Amino acid sequence: MHEVNFAVLGCGGIGRRTLDVSKEKDNLTPVAACDRNGVAVDRDGLDVDELLAATEGNIASESRSDSDRASGERSEPRADGGTAAAGDAGTESSGVKQTGENAGVAASVQADPTETPIGDIVEASDAVDAVLIALPNFEHDFIPRVADRFAEAGYEGVLLDVLKRSRVIDMLDERAGEFEQQGITFVCGAGATPGFLTSAAAIAAQSFVEIQDVEIWWGVGLKSGYEDNRGTVREDIAHLPEYDIDDAREMSDEAIEAVIDDHDGVIEFEDMEHADDVLLERAGVCDAEDVTVGGVLDVTSDEKPTTTTVRVTGTTFDGETGTNTFELDDATSMAANVNGPALGYLKAGVRRNRAGEYGVFGPADLLPRF
Amino acid sequence: MHEVNFAVLGCGGIGRRTLDVSKEKDNLTPVAACDRNGVAVDRDGLDVDELLAATEGNIASESRSDSDRASGERSEPRADGGTAAAGDAGTESSGVKQTGENAGVAASVQADPTETPIGDIVEASDAVDAVLIALPNFEHDFIPRVADRFAEAGYEGVLLDVLKRSRVIDMLDERAGEFEQQGITFVCGAGATPGFLTSAAAIAAQSFVEIQDVEIWWGVGLKSGYEDNRGTVREDIAHLPEYDIDDAREMSDEAIEAVIDDHDGVIEFEDMEHADDVLLERAGVCDAEDVTVGGVLDVTSDEKPTTTTVRVTGTTFDGETGTNTFELDDATSMAANVNGPALGYLKAGVRRNRAGEYGVFGPADLLPRF
Repeated sequence: MHEVNFAVLGCGGIGRRTLDVSKEKDNLTPVAACDRNGVAVDRDGLDVDELLAATEGNIASESRSDSDRASGERSEPRADGGTAAAGDAGTESSGVKQTGENAGVAASVQADPTETPIGDIVEASDAVDAVLIALPNFEHDFIPRVADRFAEAGYEGVLLDVLKRSRVIDMLDERAGEFEQQGITFVCGAGATPGFLTSAAAIAAQSFVEIQDVEIWWGVGLKSGYEDNRGTVREDIAHLPEYDIDDAREMSDEAIEAVIDDHDGVIEFEDMEHADDVLLERAGVCDAEDVTVGGVLDVTSDEKPTTTTVRVTGTTFDGETGTNTFELDDATSMAANVNGPALGYLKAGVRRNRAGEYGVFGPADLLPRF
Repeated sequence: MHEVNFAVLGCGGIGRRTLDVSKEKDNLTPVAACDRNGVAVDRDGLDVDELLAATEGNIASESRSDSDRASGERSEPRADGGTAAAGDAGTESSGVKQTGENAGVAASVQADPTETPIGDIVEASDAVDAVLIALPNFEHDFIPRVADRFAEAGYEGVLLDVLKRSRVIDMLDERAGEFEQQGITFVCGAGATPGFLTSAAAIAAQSFVEIQDVEIWWGVGLKSGYEDNRGTVREDIAHLPEYDIDDAREMSDEAIEAVIDDHDGVIEFEDMEHADDVLLERAGVCDAEDVTVGGVLDVTSDEKPTTTTVRVTGTTFDGETGTNTFELDDATSMAANVNGPALGYLKAGVRRNRAGEYGVFGPADLLPRF
């Protein structure tokens, strides 16, 4: 495979870890990265270690204000790429307020401060084969609108997200014609779940001619990784029955912490709106309603509170009913299970794009590979 | 997806079951099938039930001579498609010798007797999007030479096999340029193992940046299915350390039975030369030498003697070592696990072919789908 140059939108937990994992992959070169305050572009390849050290240093030395949490992940895609000012996003939880320009990517010697980070990446997108959108999705149409900006600018290449919500897939599908016309291959839901586990379910289904149900059950232990993944935790809270995505967006850090405390740091989720359902249906594996997703998040321990498991129950052509099972080792972190697959899907997306296959693709359409 | 018309070469256990499973699949129409004595072509779609009934009836009423076992699976690809005469293949084990023209496919009202079954399918291949090669591979170059015949005849479409041996992949790779020029998409090793389990391993590897080892372990209980799958059992015996592929080809039925009896009907295989190794290496998942394949065949029971399991051990980007596991329910038969994936890969192959992607593809290159 030829060299793949990619960009990362957002340098929170997922974006930073993806850059980190990319060092281990052949033929993958990060050439651009941004967060809300800074953008780094180097067509010869970013110095990932420097970028990670710079952004990690910032995070470690900062107070945990809401703007820190977002760490560029809430850049507004509207208008000309102007981002919300650092203080807009919420209230401070404690300590010194972040000053903005010195936070996150902007602290890297490779970066420039910017008020239009997404616009800057769009501008540099002629150097890019694929863009990983590692931004939180606190508005359902946020990622679709980011895609619009690339399409409008004439970008031809891969866009990939690690989004979770089923309904976002429909919004992307509405844009499939535009993507096809433009030469964009959009790979959606390409993290752990949906993503890794969606493909595992599609594989496991192959023994059967009819599927009764697909159960996806995840465990995440996020003690030491908690600060880095506050955006992900906030998104998860929107999956609790008492909250919705607007609540999760608007809640203060204290309110989020209070929810976590109410659950003693261990939150169980049932019947989550994870896009595994629609992605398996569109792949022809089963009906969306036959898919259930749930799991347990433990922010008090790095140990997984439960083993991540995919169970696919179906009937074989010869009339037997059985359950095929896929289990992830408890030693594999959420980061490992999101970012490895994301980069695998990214490379698979680039192969499709180069073969002239455009439009919207789910994980079960693309086998992730190293 | 548009309609896929396919042909089956060989109507032994695998070929017949594939036709059976195809009834459950949307947009898949079998239009041609052959064995050593007969060929059936119907461009509007074969009547699978009639064909299965006709061939099953034959098998049930026949003695278990070696020629029955082969049941068209040993058609010679050389020359003009002439097949070995029914009696050539071995000695009779008991009873009345099969008469040839009335056996297998030729007994179907849809079929004609033929001495050139493969040639007949090649001739009809303009009506075919994909050809499933369900012939045993008692000579390493047998399936590659079948492919040559389609290529020489100007066939443009998918060829798919469920072969097992690692070294055959190299022979196909040598032909990749010819396939590309011709517009042939060859999908190799697309049964259970290699095939189904190869893809499962490729998926399971996604947590890791480095793989230490992949262990594929299968269990097959083949009591009631034994008569239908004698070719497969014979091929398996070639994987025992005391035998090679020439032995397995030349051995009489009695000699095969003696080997089975020596093992009390339960044969354990270790370090099999299954192409999962080279197919995972070519997909960039791991080195071929890190892959081990073994399993247990029990011809005395329909229960699996051991659970079919894929274990992938690797190191995550954050330095943890773990083992991801994929398990097939014991209730899923070998037939279910070979033929479902084979047809999934076949459809995936047709999509690639229609998108202009030609050459040789392994299972990990193509996610099987319904």
